[in-house]
Amino acid sequence: MQEELINKVMQEVMRRVGSAPAENPKESREGGQTLTTSRADLVQVTEYVGVGLGDTQGIVIANLDPAIHKLMGVDDKYRSIGVIGGRVGAGPQIMAADEAVKATNTDILSVQMPRDCKGGAGHGNLIIFGAEDVSDARRAVEVTLEVLPKYFGDVYANDQGHLELQYTARASRCLTHVFNTPEGKAFGLILGALAVIGVLMIDTAVKAADVEVVGYACPAKGTSLTNEVMIWVSGDSGAVRQSVVAGREVGIKLLSAWGQEAKPVTQPYI
Amino acid sequence: MQEELINKVMQEVMRRVGSAPAENPKESREGGQTLTTSRADLVQVTEYVGVGLGDTQGIVIANLDPAIHKLMGVDDKYRSIGVIGGRVGAGPQIMAADEAVKATNTDILSVQMPRDCKGGAGHGNLIIFGAEDVSDARRAVEVTLEVLPKYFGDVYANDQGHLELQYTARASRCLTHVFNTPEGKAFGLILGALAVIGVLMIDTAVKAADVEVVGYACPAKGTSLTNEVMIWVSGDSGAVRQSVVAGREVGIKLLSAWGQEAKPVTQPYI
Amino acid sequence: MQEELINKVMQEVMRRVGSAPAENPKESREGGQTLTTSRADLVQVTEYVGVGLGDTQGIVIANLDPAIHKLMGVDDKYRSIGVIGGRVGAGPQIMAADEAVKATNTDILSVQMPRDCKGGAGHGNLIIFGAEDVSDARRAVEVTLEVLPKYFGDVYANDQGHLELQYTARASRCLTHVFNTPEGKAFGLILGALAVIGVLMIDTAVKAADVEVVGYACPAKGTSLTNEVMIWVSGDSGAVRQSVVAGREVGIKLLSAWGQEAKPVTQPYI
Repeated sequence: MQEELINKVMQEVMRRVGSAPAENPKESREGGQTLTTSRADLVQVTEYVGVGLGDTQGIVIANLDPAIHKLMGVDDKYRSIGVIGGRVGAGPQIMAADEAVKATNTDILSVQMPRDCKGGAGHGNLIIFGAEDVSDARRAVEVTLEVLPKYFGDVYANDQGHLELQYTARASRCLTHVFNTPEGKAFGLILGALAVIGVLMIDTAVKAADVEVVGYACPAKGTSLTNEVMIWVSGDSGAVRQSVVAGREVGIKLLSAWGQEAKPVTQPYI
Repeated sequence: MQEELINKVMQEVMRRVGSAPAENPKESREGGQTLTTSRADLVQVTEYVGVGLGDTQGIVIANLDPAIHKLMGVDDKYRSIGVIGGRVGAGPQIMAADEAVKATNTDILSVQMPRDCKGGAGHGNLIIFGAEDVSDARRAVEVTLEVLPKYFGDVYANDQGHLELQYTARASRCLTHVFNTPEGKAFGLILGALAVIGVLMIDTAVKAADVEVVGYACPAKGTSLTNEVMIWVSGDSGAVRQSVVAGREVGIKLLSAWGQEAKPVTQPYI
Repeated sequence: MQEELINKVMQEVMRRVGSAPAENPKESREGGQTLTTSRADLVQVTEYVGVGLGDTQGIVIANLDPAIHKLMGVDDKYRSIGVIGGRVGAGPQIMAADEAVKATNTDILSVQMPRDCKGGAGHGNLIIFGAEDVSDARRAVEVTLEVLPKYFGDVYANDQGHLELQYTARASRCLTHVFNTPEGKAFGLILGALAVIGVLMIDTAVKAADVEVVGYACPAKGTSLTNEVMIWVSGDSGAVRQSVVAGREVGIKLLSAWGQEAKPVTQPYI
């Protein structure tokens, strides 16, 4: 009888509160896996490739219409495009796409960063790969979705904000496209949101190691008006990593100042 | 006794979860009706006209202050203005305002699209009608609120994003003002958010029928940095509708890729 | 037995609805107090000063790195900076910082307003104080956090939007920096979000008293694409206050049009 009563109450609760459970960004995501295969069956659209963390979706278009080529400013030689887009995060998707261009015969045609983040303080993303062959475009999208969970490993979040740290020993063409960082050299991203947290993170990062600051962005400049402050750095790989780690340490402490721990979305990798 | 217990639990639940039920954009809205009359009584402000879907409100100002005329860049001949503004959606309100300018002796003075959407991926809106007579301005606002539910009919949403499709056989002055589309001709809007979904929708739409693409917008261009990709098209009314319907079909499938159905806010009309 | 049953149900409810209670912006904040001391102990970062309303945090950097001086465009003579940043609100933090520059030996170096507000319709903020001595920078941040609750007193909010009213008899250098309002004279801010509500508030405000309109902002101009319309006014202090109060009165009524009262975040002070 108790069980029955509880069920009855739960139905009423769910009806009043809304049918879906309150969104928890970390738990509602894909648990570090892209569910490419099973979902593709469900979606039944040829162009669909898969979904991943950060409300990210990947598609491929085998023969882009010439009218769309023109609208998007895409060179006609790219008969096929692969597209990645997400609501939450730009850095993880960009890092993953950087691996994908290394691994495939594709080019990065466009990276755009809407002000989105599902109410969070940061960006969403739209990344377009160009290829002469559809199988290359598809492979780039698959690789991006496969490696995406890794790059959410040093994204730390709580109800107040988030931090993002990224590191690679060898930047490829996607990072060069977005950040104008030297190709083939180490790259690090140190980012804090709220912007105030980012300010201390970047000061700490440049003091921690001898790195070259390649770029700087803040709400009024270089972001899509997001509440973020960030730098990206290049140089010796050990120094870049040291700089990123120093920024991370102080950022996590500041972001936890409201009493709620700032947890990584997946497993830290840096 | 069971009823009493359930009530007691519900009170406790509502207290802990927050006094208001968790917001469900579709259910918390006005159920397809504008509650103009009863709410106007409650609000007790002469200028208040009503509220509608998308957290939209309509007001009218009989004698706009000359200082405000100047600040807003409104011609002095418009003694009265009607104003529509919403948190969620720009397309539906623009379509509804387009009907309103057809039906009344008013002009469209300004249409602005803030980056809003209550945490969603799209826009809010601010639409200003000008009139020489206050009754005309009021009528334009009333018509907009009355027809607004129709134009949420092909807005499809779930927790991951939304799609918006609009269609009219005869565009009027509001659509011309916003989209620079030919007046008196068919108009169609094909929009997807996340932007990645929009990319496939617009490619599918232009392939489906022989339409003229009047404009294109993406996060970096033509939007207020929203996570949307869209085109708007003109041409033969049958072709425009066919193009819109084709974009809708593929969009709904992609937006449902996370396993949650993308449902229309009201009744589809296209 | 009833109590036990209720507890069991509540556990289940909380599990399904999400572990945290649905966010209530007013209650989840700091209850009108900055928790500077106790939190500083927890955070254990020298630069941390405290947190306050609006998800605001304050930090201080004693010796800003020369590389960061250059990136931020900060004059080298400011060896130390104090930084305030929040997710919700720009006006309250700016008013509080204005008191802080009056009270300390610091300058305002930068005020930025990201499009944030945690899904709300307005801005977040990033405010940087410069000082030659770290104790001055720290004091400016402390003063800002201390007086911040006062300036949330005429911020009214509900699920649909918010209003913000601010008033001071003597504007200081922070207000001059942001709003270009005459230093040492009365200053008033009249702001409504949704923008449509702001339109009637500003028209009412300029009709209510003989004030000088110093500036105007709307979604397309002067904001970071937020869903707000606002003016700021100067002049005789009685007139400025009268103008602000008139805007407030009509704004509260319009914002309550959906049936939910628009309540002040703390205690009204104007």
